[in-house]
Amino acid sequence: MTTDQLQQLNIIQDKLVYHQIVLFNQLTSFPLASLGRGTASVQMHRGNFEMRDTLSEKIPLQTIKITQNKSDWTLLLGHESIAYLSLKFLLSAQDRLVVTPTILKGNWNRLWLRLNAQANEQIYGCGEQLSYFDLRGHHFPLWSSEPGIGRNKHTLTTFQADQEHAGGDYYTTNYPEATFISSQKYYCHADTYTYADFDFRAPDHHELQFWGIPTKLTFETATDFESLTSKLSRLLGRTRGLPDWTNNGVILGLQGGTKRVNEIKTRLEAHGVKIAGLWCQDWEGVRMTSFGKRLFWDWQPDTSLYPNLKDQINAWRQSGIRFLGYINPYVASDSALFKIGTHNGYFAKNKAGDVYLVDFGEFNCGVVDFTNPTAFEWFKQLIQQRLINEGFAGWMADFGEYLPTDVVLFDHSDPMARHNQWPVLWAKCNYEAVRASPNADQLLYFMRAGATGSQHYNQLLWAGDQSVNWSRDDGLIFTIPAALSSGLIGNSLSHSDIGGYTSMYGNVRTKELFMRWAEMAAFTPIMRTHEGNRPDQNFQVYDDPEAMNHLAKCTDWFVTLSPYRQAVVRDAVKLGLPAQRPLMMYYDDSQAMRCQSEYLFGRDLLVAPVAQPAQKTWPVFLPDDQWVHLWSGKAYGSGTHQVAAPLGQPPVFYRQQSPYTKLFQTLGGLQ
Amino acid sequence: MTTDQLQQLNIIQDKLVYHQIVLFNQLTSFPLASLGRGTASVQMHRGNFEMRDTLSEKIPLQTIKITQNKSDWTLLLGHESIAYLSLKFLLSAQDRLVVTPTILKGNWNRLWLRLNAQANEQIYGCGEQLSYFDLRGHHFPLWSSEPGIGRNKHTLTTFQADQEHAGGDYYTTNYPEATFISSQKYYCHADTYTYADFDFRAPDHHELQFWGIPTKLTFETATDFESLTSKLSRLLGRTRGLPDWTNNGVILGLQGGTKRVNEIKTRLEAHGVKIAGLWCQDWEGVRMTSFGKRLFWDWQPDTSLYPNLKDQINAWRQSGIRFLGYINPYVASDSALFKIGTHNGYFAKNKAGDVYLVDFGEFNCGVVDFTNPTAFEWFKQLIQQRLINEGFAGWMADFGEYLPTDVVLFDHSDPMARHNQWPVLWAKCNYEAVRASPNADQLLYFMRAGATGSQHYNQLLWAGDQSVNWSRDDGLIFTIPAALSSGLIGNSLSHSDIGGYTSMYGNVRTKELFMRWAEMAAFTPIMRTHEGNRPDQNFQVYDDPEAMNHLAKCTDWFVTLSPYRQAVVRDAVKLGLPAQRPLMMYYDDSQAMRCQSEYLFGRDLLVAPVAQPAQKTWPVFLPDDQWVHLWSGKAYGSGTHQVAAPLGQPPVFYRQQSPYTKLFQTLGGLQ
Repeated sequence: MTTDQLQQLNIIQDKLVYHQIVLFNQLTSFPLASLGRGTASVQMHRGNFEMRDTLSEKIPLQTIKITQNKSDWTLLLGHESIAYLSLKFLLSAQDRLVVTPTILKGNWNRLWLRLNAQANEQIYGCGEQLSYFDLRGHHFPLWSSEPGIGRNKHTLTTFQADQEHAGGDYYTTNYPEATFISSQKYYCHADTYTYADFDFRAPDHHELQFWGIPTKLTFETATDFESLTSKLSRLLGRTRGLPDWTNNGVILGLQGGTKRVNEIKTRLEAHGVKIAGLWCQDWEGVRMTSFGKRLFWDWQPDTSLYPNLKDQINAWRQSGIRFLGYINPYVASDSALFKIGTHNGYFAKNKAGDVYLVDFGEFNCGVVDFTNPTAFEWFKQLIQQRLINEGFAGWMADFGEYLPTDVVLFDHSDPMARHNQWPVLWAKCNYEAVRASPNADQLLYFMRAGATGSQHYNQLLWAGDQSVNWSRDDGLIFTIPAALSSGLIGNSLSHSDIGGYTSMYGNVRTKELFMRWAEMAAFTPIMRTHEGNRPDQNFQVYDDPEAMNHLAKCTDWFVTLSPYRQAVVRDAVKLGLPAQRPLMMYYDDSQAMRCQSEYLFGRDLLVAPVAQPAQKTWPVFLPDDQWVHLWSGKAYGSGTHQVAAPLGQPPVFYRQQSPYTKLFQTLGGLQ
Repeated sequence: MTTDQLQQLNIIQDKLVYHQIVLFNQLTSFPLASLGRGTASVQMHRGNFEMRDTLSEKIPLQTIKITQNKSDWTLLLGHESIAYLSLKFLLSAQDRLVVTPTILKGNWNRLWLRLNAQANEQIYGCGEQLSYFDLRGHHFPLWSSEPGIGRNKHTLTTFQADQEHAGGDYYTTNYPEATFISSQKYYCHADTYTYADFDFRAPDHHELQFWGIPTKLTFETATDFESLTSKLSRLLGRTRGLPDWTNNGVILGLQGGTKRVNEIKTRLEAHGVKIAGLWCQDWEGVRMTSFGKRLFWDWQPDTSLYPNLKDQINAWRQSGIRFLGYINPYVASDSALFKIGTHNGYFAKNKAGDVYLVDFGEFNCGVVDFTNPTAFEWFKQLIQQRLINEGFAGWMADFGEYLPTDVVLFDHSDPMARHNQWPVLWAKCNYEAVRASPNADQLLYFMRAGATGSQHYNQLLWAGDQSVNWSRDDGLIFTIPAALSSGLIGNSLSHSDIGGYTSMYGNVRTKELFMRWAEMAAFTPIMRTHEGNRPDQNFQVYDDPEAMNHLAKCTDWFVTLSPYRQAVVRDAVKLGLPAQRPLMMYYDDSQAMRCQSEYLFGRDLLVAPVAQPAQKTWPVFLPDDQWVHLWSGKAYGSGTHQVAAPLGQPPVFYRQQSPYTKLFQTLGGLQ
């Protein structure tokens, strides 16, 4: 170790100090690691999971020996002669701290690691977390799943959904990840896809539980959160950015076939709505279930709904409008494609050697086995042939969270360790399909599921299936913590279904909800509408002239904002900076450190969406800076201000120092 | 060990065999014991608890040495040199197997013991369990608490109650106990009051978890369940029986003062209702809370409600009617008694040395500290002076489950180890107060809370606070598993509030529910009504002539049945046999082994209460015997029969071989 490195990584008086941050303390007295053995029980109900661990053994380890080698420190931990664990702390060439746990004795499948914590510390990240931006005070099981309906055990909606095993909780997410950022200005990333549970409840430590031994943990520090996020994204990867055509307006989620789509498109255009794309998820046909309108997962066009689709796509393209579709990595058991996949052994198997059928809600599917290179290639080519070559400009690459833990995979790897990884294998399949296309830069796919690697292999996140309401944990406003937490760990681009998706148990979308959601979406990377799971029972913009006019205005803003947004996206591609940034990234005041109802869009815009119905004004917290209200041009200082916020004037502020002041003034004139 | 004993307790091929039952198997390979350390977190919300264990260590032990001594076997268990546990298996003079766990090395506060299980085995007991009679397939946290409202996480009532931390679960009970009976015809009793969790989910073992090391575990076998229960009650104690006057009719729960009570009494007598006692829980006054009408816990008569109470009691006594009251071991902080108790240091303290105030729902109370002999004596004398000497013939001795785990007790014992014991200390206080009275045989107290020792110190159980409906887990029919499970472990006498108690979230008592409950109560040891927590909003028998006539008929049955019931109660006192007996006690068919909707009242009556509204017939399972339908006199064999069951003809059958045939025929004629 060089003298310089010695200063950056040292053990001083029972503390492991990395860049002045005490990462581990009480090295000789505190059980900073425990090993154990457990037996997992996993119940899956349509992507919702019940996890139970029967723990047969847990051994807290004592520090036996601390060794300083040439380029690293090694902690030898153990307990009598039954368990030995070595933790090697190496400062890498990139100035990262790499901690490698190695079991030297014993047969263990559970590991607990305790990091030092400060009482007033905040923690962020752990994938896409929807209920809490600051994770402190809670624990987070990290397991890829449906987000669940309601996501709050105190709501009637969740209670009702739980009767069908479909209610979520504060931690349920399509995208969990064993990566977090501390307000002490370091990140911690664990190289593992096993089930984990990160517990941030204790005042003096964070406890990281793993159902398996991670390959390594990586830490890095920075002097500010912007560069910390940038450094983390250098480790985990960055997005490819967005095609230029996405700046042309909204991507309209429409269904029902060419005729209906064209009718609605014409109607919206007549009201001045600027349209970038038509996203028809039912291009492959529909099936009705009790949950609502579902799609027919055979991945070939429904020629009765969309006759001559390739020609039609071309015609739309001529008028400046792209066509987008939908795909996921499952194949319906009642399709021709299923026969082909079965014949070739492309699907994951059950223990009897047959295709493992997964219940998706009144229909069953085979799971494309991405551990089989031939199956991976088959599905990649399917995307190329059925989507890209047909002229699709993009698609929703749905799902990825449903890998059962009792499948038999082609490579015989453990499904418990593959489950959380599956979304990124699926992302990679899309990534490679796109990369091979000469039009790669003009293609757009977006996913809700994620894992380590999604930062690079997924182009654009969407926040999953919100309920069509204003509810705590599952409504409009909870797309913000989703974007902020995933963004801080390198998923720079996110967006959500305008108007929400899930309509169950009497929750139906109102016109006002749609309008407020559209206002917010104008200040995100992408505007995209969704008709929801029960289109006929919910408010649709194309049925209402006032809402169409409102959407037209929002698309005006969106198009006008393009130069700024393109710069924001460039920061995402080049620096790994999120488009939607938490206030804490630049302002260290305690309210900013926890704020999850507002965000910065890029560096210069502060957005505080109205998240309740029937509001004429809205309280906006402004951190310490000089702000200008977008619509009134009025200057504001820091503090909480009650701001006029009628429909059509969402609370948005720009920084007086911004180089885009003129653009923002133009935008403010479009109200 | 004598040759005879050797045959009864032996270790043969890795199995510990006791009277041909394999209690422990795989002695050398199976971790039949684990030791650990944990830190408990306990949150109490008005008697409802959230328990969380942070387990820092769990060590499965290996068998190191098996020793046969003169009169016992000893298993030395251990793990490397860090944990040693000795399990001594001694056959006592009574032919009981006494297992004594002793920690030889290490500082442990968690113990797991694994007993051998058979795949088709049933388990019963664990105190008063309301949701399941056969406990197999579930685990049972054993911690004294409110039963909780609804007691089923799938019901809307429980969901609503959970918003106020007041919803129960299948295992929540006023009376948990670390004692069970196996269908292999042995009992297991653990001598401990610590928190425990008995897990009967595995096919091949039962896992008993203790948050502390039990003094000992006792096992005993029998050739049939009747003698097994009798043997267990010899170990744990037996009831004193019931005063003769309880045979005179119903004990009426009435409130509102002498005037109102007399009016209603007269009205009921006019309809032919036979009254044994008037139970006026508001003798000490009332206070209104949002939950409903509550009592004023200062334990002195409310002279405005009940003027000259002693004289009035005497007057009622002259007309053959007893008076009963109410008391519990708490003292309201706004009472004169509280000042006296505080001054003398009779209440449990908080860490600051002040009286620990417990929240009982909009009022606070001091907890009489039964570990302080002077406080115990004080409260015992209070019962004598304020109740017995005033002429009370009985009282509800309510509560006992609310001992907080962070109190400081007089004897400095650990409240975690005292919490579950508290109900039996409270029972003992009542027991001693009664025993000192020359009229002891004529006094009656009844409790809902219990623990090991309640078998002797509590005279009569009542099944706690049912909801006023037919609901699963919390309605009428769940008083049956309550009586059966507690009865099998020696609490021979139980009963319930006719009509239920808890009316919340729109649940209100119907006339039909009251009538069905009264029908059932006629075939239990005691008939007692309750007006419920919200008397004005719920059906009351005295408001309805038809219901009064029905109740009159039920009291006729009850009085007529006295000779039989007295014999049943004698069996309780002399043999420890429960008055309400499970079918499995005498019939080993698989349906009988699990039946929890029917019971035998004594040996000869089978009672199958109608547990749903608007039923004209009811399906009755009859085990293998010769049965006679009480009301029609029709003979039935075994099997399930759809039986006529209009109001006034609850499905009751008697055994043809019964010595009480004539009495039953008389009874059947009273329909």
